[in-house]
Amino acid sequence: MRSWVAAANAPESPFPIQNLPYGVFSRPGEHPRCCVAIGDAALDLAALEETGLVSIPGNDGVFAQPFLNGFMALGSPVWDAVRNRLTDLLAEGGDTALSGNSPLRNAALIPLSDVSLHLPFQIAEYTDFYAGRHHAVNVGTMFRGPENALPPNWLHIPIGYNGRASSVVVSGTAVRRPLGQLKPPGAETPIFGPCRRLDMELELGAVIGGSNRLGEAVTVSEADEMIFGYVLLNDWSARDIQAWEYQPLGPFQAKAFATSISPWIVTKAALAPFRRSTPHRERELLPYLREPGPMLYDIALEADLTPASAAHATTITRTNYKEMYYSAAQQLCHHAVSGCPMRVGDLIGSGTISGPDKGAYGSLLELSWGGKEPITLATGETRSFLEDGDLVTLRGWAQGDRYRIGFGECSGQILPALQKEEWLS
Amino acid sequence: MRSWVAAANAPESPFPIQNLPYGVFSRPGEHPRCCVAIGDAALDLAALEETGLVSIPGNDGVFAQPFLNGFMALGSPVWDAVRNRLTDLLAEGGDTALSGNSPLRNAALIPLSDVSLHLPFQIAEYTDFYAGRHHAVNVGTMFRGPENALPPNWLHIPIGYNGRASSVVVSGTAVRRPLGQLKPPGAETPIFGPCRRLDMELELGAVIGGSNRLGEAVTVSEADEMIFGYVLLNDWSARDIQAWEYQPLGPFQAKAFATSISPWIVTKAALAPFRRSTPHRERELLPYLREPGPMLYDIALEADLTPASAAHATTITRTNYKEMYYSAAQQLCHHAVSGCPMRVGDLIGSGTISGPDKGAYGSLLELSWGGKEPITLATGETRSFLEDGDLVTLRGWAQGDRYRIGFGECSGQILPALQKEEWLS
Repeated sequence: MRSWVAAANAPESPFPIQNLPYGVFSRPGEHPRCCVAIGDAALDLAALEETGLVSIPGNDGVFAQPFLNGFMALGSPVWDAVRNRLTDLLAEGGDTALSGNSPLRNAALIPLSDVSLHLPFQIAEYTDFYAGRHHAVNVGTMFRGPENALPPNWLHIPIGYNGRASSVVVSGTAVRRPLGQLKPPGAETPIFGPCRRLDMELELGAVIGGSNRLGEAVTVSEADEMIFGYVLLNDWSARDIQAWEYQPLGPFQAKAFATSISPWIVTKAALAPFRRSTPHRERELLPYLREPGPMLYDIALEADLTPASAAHATTITRTNYKEMYYSAAQQLCHHAVSGCPMRVGDLIGSGTISGPDKGAYGSLLELSWGGKEPITLATGETRSFLEDGDLVTLRGWAQGDRYRIGFGECSGQILPALQKEEWLS
Repeated sequence: MRSWVAAANAPESPFPIQNLPYGVFSRPGEHPRCCVAIGDAALDLAALEETGLVSIPGNDGVFAQPFLNGFMALGSPVWDAVRNRLTDLLAEGGDTALSGNSPLRNAALIPLSDVSLHLPFQIAEYTDFYAGRHHAVNVGTMFRGPENALPPNWLHIPIGYNGRASSVVVSGTAVRRPLGQLKPPGAETPIFGPCRRLDMELELGAVIGGSNRLGEAVTVSEADEMIFGYVLLNDWSARDIQAWEYQPLGPFQAKAFATSISPWIVTKAALAPFRRSTPHRERELLPYLREPGPMLYDIALEADLTPASAAHATTITRTNYKEMYYSAAQQLCHHAVSGCPMRVGDLIGSGTISGPDKGAYGSLLELSWGGKEPITLATGETRSFLEDGDLVTLRGWAQGDRYRIGFGECSGQILPALQKEEWLS
């Protein structure tokens, strides 16, 4: 299917008519409001709503809000109806109400180069999982040796922990190197100071558009229904803070300083043609976690690292979301199984997405094997962990037949640590 | 100081004029709104605001909201001004604008027996700590043996983990026994089903009324300034789910099904006369965690257990908040040290408050020593963990000279697990 928005038809465009990812945008001085990306433009959904080209009975103004939560809460029949309507308005040969109305077209289709993109939804709560087997084996091998690499529960439970929603930021937000307690190798007691082993983790985030009540579990199918879409997610990690703090209650400040997400939410509907099954399991899952159908996706993922001094980026990893052992639907089912209420706006991190080979590892911890094998960048510089000024950019797409469902980018640049004067004396 | 509200002057009243804890109340058919407790009544702050007896310039209607977050966000100068004004309006010999206006007095002072109390604030995020030394030693001894009881980081870091804000409920809300994965002793593989080792944890919660920006740490003093007040908190725990899931990323579903808090937030101002220092430390803390003054409180705490069949309760533990090793201000400072943004409405659990002796342990896990030494109730029944129908009630107060700063109650009754039909076949 082709769009009359010409740029959407280029085979390498991340935003063809098959995609229509949701975001929140503004131009200088304007109120942020909801849009979809099409080709090289943001389509202003508040403007379409105002002129009656898109309408959701009983929910006037839902796209004029500065977050997508209101729309997300309306559920899949409304998501589907709006997607169908937008497809009709944007398709070659479709409804000409937008394409044939040049003042509205000019007002509502805004070049992406002219807009700022904001955090697309209010994060209710953020949970991060540990559901990539290659990553779990790699990290477990480094921390506990190859014979104890996978914890005994790992093949039975999608292991997760609650993260910190207040530190989720949109792509482009600078990330400050965190302060914390570290225990250098061989030291007797911990010291306080800036993180020395700052890392990234390449993940996908599932954005929740449904809810369940306190005390009421959901099935994997119901969980899949509750997912509105997916974003790129960089789970920035302070490895030295993490190593000292994480026993016995898990990662805390090592993960609390920032989590970056892409500004576009790619919908479950756009990803439907790319569904893949989870891998073969050597141990059968308990019945509540079994999937009634394929719920992973074939999504190519890359991460670039660009030092402050460098003119161009080095792609440090190439991997794929289909490598995961547990799908977001399985994670969400497990998250609610105790009766924990999930809410519209919850964000579920997949866990680091590492492929089987070194070039496909999703973190510097794995790529540099705990700092023992620094990687070499295109500039000739080496890296074990991130340095101040480094820019990390994640990219992802599902490759269709002459079109791609792109996620855009998720980037963040490292700022030096900010010390408090009281603590330096 | 005495109040013209006679019931407030009884020495055993939890709500004397020195207390004035904040809550959110309604009568049947009414909108929930903010109040303070005085004697045997709720004082309707929205009514006082409407009639101009209490006013916060530029913030009209802040007490008409169904949550205290708006008021909490105004900061300590406003908290102090409102407390002073309410004290003046309620004191014998104070301003007679309320006491002398009988229609207003009758409208604004509502018997507590006539009102429903609601969750007093919207929980932004919930973090639970592990800062009671006796509890950490007890649990560590049971799980890892006496020689490894305290993890190596415990004397240096207030260990905490992010909990689940969506499952925080107000006192009186029933608590459903969670489903989850358990691995019975000796079993090869886990099973799925209702928790068999359901527990309570007696804690205090600090309610945050300030914020810090992403990337900017706060000192212990600044953290103390950010605390609005304290509530009773029951950190319900599924010990068997926890034992199987908690390695390597900490407790997750074992703590996600419910956390109960008391409906009254006792302010930091009311507790000021009861400040106590943290205990002697065998290892000095890193400078960023040192306290400039006493930031714990002398608060007596009790827990009652009442089986469904029983006519009266058994007090199963008597302990005190001053037993903690880290104060809420130290916990909050550590929480923000990485640059994690804290927000108005954050809730910080103290960790289980166990005293040194068996009668002062804050959880059934400790009281029954992992189920090996069941406790005997007044009815003659025994308990290792909670059974369906059991009611747990927490109480707390700071004892002044002929007055008590009471916290009221924090209670919850256990409902049987709710199975999904799909999972029973």
